[in-house]
Amino acid sequence: MIFRSLEDLRACCRDLPGGDAVAAMAAQARQDVLTKPLGSLGRLEELAVWLARWQGREIPSLERVTIAVFAGNHGVAQRGVSAYPQAVTAQMVANFTAGGAAINQLAKLAGADLQVVPIDLDRPTADFADLPAMTVDEFLNALDIGYRTVPRHCDLLIVGEMGIANTTTASALCAVLLGEDVSTWIGRGTGVDDQGLERKRATVEAGLRRHEALRADPLATAAALGGRELAAIAGAALAARQYRIPVLLDGFVATAAVLPLHRVAPAALDHCRAGHLSSESGHRALLRHLGLRPLIDLDMRLGEASGAAVALHLLRAAVACHRGMATFSEAGVSGRSDAESNKG
Amino acid sequence: MIFRSLEDLRACCRDLPGGDAVAAMAAQARQDVLTKPLGSLGRLEELAVWLARWQGREIPSLERVTIAVFAGNHGVAQRGVSAYPQAVTAQMVANFTAGGAAINQLAKLAGADLQVVPIDLDRPTADFADLPAMTVDEFLNALDIGYRTVPRHCDLLIVGEMGIANTTTASALCAVLLGEDVSTWIGRGTGVDDQGLERKRATVEAGLRRHEALRADPLATAAALGGRELAAIAGAALAARQYRIPVLLDGFVATAAVLPLHRVAPAALDHCRAGHLSSESGHRALLRHLGLRPLIDLDMRLGEASGAAVALHLLRAAVACHRGMATFSEAGVSGRSDAESNKG
Repeated sequence: MIFRSLEDLRACCRDLPGGDAVAAMAAQARQDVLTKPLGSLGRLEELAVWLARWQGREIPSLERVTIAVFAGNHGVAQRGVSAYPQAVTAQMVANFTAGGAAINQLAKLAGADLQVVPIDLDRPTADFADLPAMTVDEFLNALDIGYRTVPRHCDLLIVGEMGIANTTTASALCAVLLGEDVSTWIGRGTGVDDQGLERKRATVEAGLRRHEALRADPLATAAALGGRELAAIAGAALAARQYRIPVLLDGFVATAAVLPLHRVAPAALDHCRAGHLSSESGHRALLRHLGLRPLIDLDMRLGEASGAAVALHLLRAAVACHRGMATFSEAGVSGRSDAESNKG
Repeated sequence: MIFRSLEDLRACCRDLPGGDAVAAMAAQARQDVLTKPLGSLGRLEELAVWLARWQGREIPSLERVTIAVFAGNHGVAQRGVSAYPQAVTAQMVANFTAGGAAINQLAKLAGADLQVVPIDLDRPTADFADLPAMTVDEFLNALDIGYRTVPRHCDLLIVGEMGIANTTTASALCAVLLGEDVSTWIGRGTGVDDQGLERKRATVEAGLRRHEALRADPLATAAALGGRELAAIAGAALAARQYRIPVLLDGFVATAAVLPLHRVAPAALDHCRAGHLSSESGHRALLRHLGLRPLIDLDMRLGEASGAAVALHLLRAAVACHRGMATFSEAGVSGRSDAESNKG
């Protein structure tokens, strides 16, 4: 395994490569002479510069985009916290393989390579209300699988997940690592009814009581309350960082998956952006804690990387403008008629 | 001309074809059996149903998308209400023709056909602070040009504009037709400084005083305070409605352009959606008046249909999922484990 202990992993989180500030400056300088009022492409400009920073080139590319969807099963599913039976995790993985899920259509539309990685679906994590969900070795092993999924040469990584009951897992992680009232973190997931929501609350509260002593150790918390697909997402995000590949996160679960890294070292997520705002209720508060502003807000709550796969088109738009637009001098377009001092 | 008088035009606005409710119902029924929790694709589901309604088919298509960018010049430009000289309108039209502008890159990326339609650039409208911007004939003629730009067989129309000083025009239209304080409607456009902003305010206030008696006649107001490219957008939106083509509006100016139609008959815009929320300050209030919720919010304020062209990808994502996803029974995925009564 790449990380032999939580200590190894912690040390890695604190010693990650930064982006390329020179490429970012060159990209910003290019934005400022393209044929448009300064700043008028808004976040598309900032996204182009962010991609330039992490790809290390003035004109970034999105030729090779990998969407990694990790799947896992959860002991807490036995508590009736989802509207769907646990068998649906494997059934949806089969649907991914057959090309029938939302993410298949979205990956194809966006020209991205889809990697589906089920992890030990026949071996759910333990029920975190009673026990640690995973041993440290199980956690590190799942993280390893995620790490190894990331191709070294890739322009962008999108991470997503599938796992019946995993919004309960994500809620518990947030409750332990971020505090606030439990109701901030629980939502209807796939669409549970009021009784299901109460069962989620009771389960998260039990997990909190059982494991809150671990709060000071975010990685131990990730093992005790997390899931294999969440660990794999954290591993993939770390691999991307090592290779300086920018990352687009999907929704609530995928974002909760990288929260432990952020708790160890906030800069560990500098290469990550939030693809979208999920309608799963904890996502907004989680993004606020991470200082991430989502690219789109379409009331989606499907998971499987679907929100980020839609947001990928916004990055493509940013790159298309950055790459293809003429400069004022190339196009013979007049500059501002008022004073230069007004710039910016 | 298609409309010989404002009376003709008014009658048309009040006698427009509706959408296909049966196709919309069939599309909704399809959404409800695709392999995802009910409603979990959020607005993508609703967008697919909206496209189905206006295209009149259960599974809509976005093969043939036309982006129409109309350009015009404005008498009020002489009042120093823009950061750029009036010559930039024609220069940017040349940039569109040469392929160097943002909209060229965005149209190409999204596989849309770009139509650039400059209208009498060497003949700016009159300065509305002193005179009616256009005669009724000039207004109807520009509207006619827009109407004739729309191909009869087209899956989606996107409308946008280019015209130095036209945010001032749009602000004046909103101020007369919607009331509220003038400061609600004026913003920095291409990036005017504080003095420029004050000149915009004074210009809009002068236009308001000069023409507010027309308020009860939204079409006469559109002639007196509008612009040729705005009239053309209104004409294009009407043509799309006659052909039952759904329309994606761009930002503040493009939305202000169809406001007069809405004031004549609110249902006249049922086939239109707001592509994005512009950072031009009046846009949010204008969309609220029209009851439109924008698809994206990226702090863009460029015009030339750029925001809507980015939002087009969201419609493509909606159609890709609607068309390509397997149903629960096709994929052999289990339904909900809790009671059917929880549906919805």
